[in-house]
Amino acid sequence: MKFARIGALGAEVPVLVQEDRLFSLQHLTADIDGAFLSGGGPAKAAAALAAGGLPEIPGEGIRYGAPISRPSAVVGIGQNYAAHAAESGSLPPEQPIIFLKAPNTVSGPDDAVTIPRGSTKTDWEVELGVVIGKRASYLQSKEAARDYIAGFVTVNDLSERDFQLNVSGGQWSKGKSSAGFCPTGPYLVTADEVDYGNLRLRSWVNGEPRQESSTAGMVFDVETLVWDLSQYLVLEPGDLICTGTPAGVALSGRFPYLKAGDVVEIEVEGLGRQRQEFRP
Amino acid sequence: MKFARIGALGAEVPVLVQEDRLFSLQHLTADIDGAFLSGGGPAKAAAALAAGGLPEIPGEGIRYGAPISRPSAVVGIGQNYAAHAAESGSLPPEQPIIFLKAPNTVSGPDDAVTIPRGSTKTDWEVELGVVIGKRASYLQSKEAARDYIAGFVTVNDLSERDFQLNVSGGQWSKGKSSAGFCPTGPYLVTADEVDYGNLRLRSWVNGEPRQESSTAGMVFDVETLVWDLSQYLVLEPGDLICTGTPAGVALSGRFPYLKAGDVVEIEVEGLGRQRQEFRP
Repeated sequence: MKFARIGALGAEVPVLVQEDRLFSLQHLTADIDGAFLSGGGPAKAAAALAAGGLPEIPGEGIRYGAPISRPSAVVGIGQNYAAHAAESGSLPPEQPIIFLKAPNTVSGPDDAVTIPRGSTKTDWEVELGVVIGKRASYLQSKEAARDYIAGFVTVNDLSERDFQLNVSGGQWSKGKSSAGFCPTGPYLVTADEVDYGNLRLRSWVNGEPRQESSTAGMVFDVETLVWDLSQYLVLEPGDLICTGTPAGVALSGRFPYLKAGDVVEIEVEGLGRQRQEFRP
Repeated sequence: MKFARIGALGAEVPVLVQEDRLFSLQHLTADIDGAFLSGGGPAKAAAALAAGGLPEIPGEGIRYGAPISRPSAVVGIGQNYAAHAAESGSLPPEQPIIFLKAPNTVSGPDDAVTIPRGSTKTDWEVELGVVIGKRASYLQSKEAARDYIAGFVTVNDLSERDFQLNVSGGQWSKGKSSAGFCPTGPYLVTADEVDYGNLRLRSWVNGEPRQESSTAGMVFDVETLVWDLSQYLVLEPGDLICTGTPAGVALSGRFPYLKAGDVVEIEVEGLGRQRQEFRP
């Protein structure tokens, strides 16, 4: 199943997406959030659709918001592809590197992004996003992790490299938390429909290719990440894990950083494509 | 004014505290949260108290929760006292070092804390906590920051030093986010009643003194922190900033780390005292 949230910023309504048709979930839930995901919402939505109980609504020209309402935490994973670690000047990590993004960075997949004041090094990062489906603490095994995943999203883990690396004693969050720095969606696709161990990831700037890789190249796979995180914090339903980006970002020195007027597009196979215009 | 949230975990009710009397705010607000703080709640509470409109409730034996409901973000500040930076092996920072704690770490001031599985280096950190009162982005000046502060709390920025320093590529959040790692309160005291530039901070383990300092020793003062943060992220009403800890933690090598059965007490002058028993 595929879910989305459509409508004006702050007034999004939850929908189920089937092929290119949109079905309102408003009679079933106020939002796509932790309560919906952990309370059997997806199964109820499927049953309601099958029973003809979800009204179809027109989708033309509508804005997509993030397909999940604001998470309680957005966890980023650092250097989780060997070639990206190398272009960042590092060896692949021996244990998952985690950092947190401010949860209010989560925004719609096609919302314009304002380049932060004083920024000279705004950078893109296409990533597979994992959405947690139930509270996860001290999972017993990597295999158990699968049961705690609600679904997957395309996510752009936008980063300001000077803020990230140079003005916070090496702690990355300062460069990961500017307004609009976590475009998410358009779709939340449930875990049963996603071959998440082998998805193509791509990004473009002004139509020119930048990143092209597969989630098969992760240093730590999705189950390992969820299991590892659960040893150090409590993951809540609706939380978002950004699983790391492959090689091909501006930090590599191979491409210029983003400037006003640039257009970034990113896509994770099967999870939908994003397009952001960058503004001064 | 002084606010608190009392009652069982997850069922706390908001109260106004005057001397040792508790007055229910339940007819005025469902919670002490961002909406209450940014929507003129404190002034309404003061008016209702003056008009005799707040019913007094008994407080004996009652549990105190954190005095704010779960923030959208908990921002930590690193090495903000020179002597603590030195005991951590660092020079004082040239710009504020920020990291994020998972917001679900916020807990009551006297709740027992479970030592995380595999922990050998659980450590205390008494800190002045700043609670944001209105949305803050790109503040024009340090002086302007004062208007964005709702009040202050005592906070224990609990840390697992091995998780913080050794298993996440140097990114600290992994050691700052275990369940119960942010005891907060008991009181939220409004900014007008707090001489926050010169408050005594103290901590004890099993009754023995550990930290003793003053917020006058901060490398970056409260206004500078709020102003600086607002350049890198959007602070939301109800967000919590943990402003850094002074010297005297176990990381210094002068004291043992915490073990099951230990009792930590911390106090920030005028903001109330906490007491946590540590459990296996």
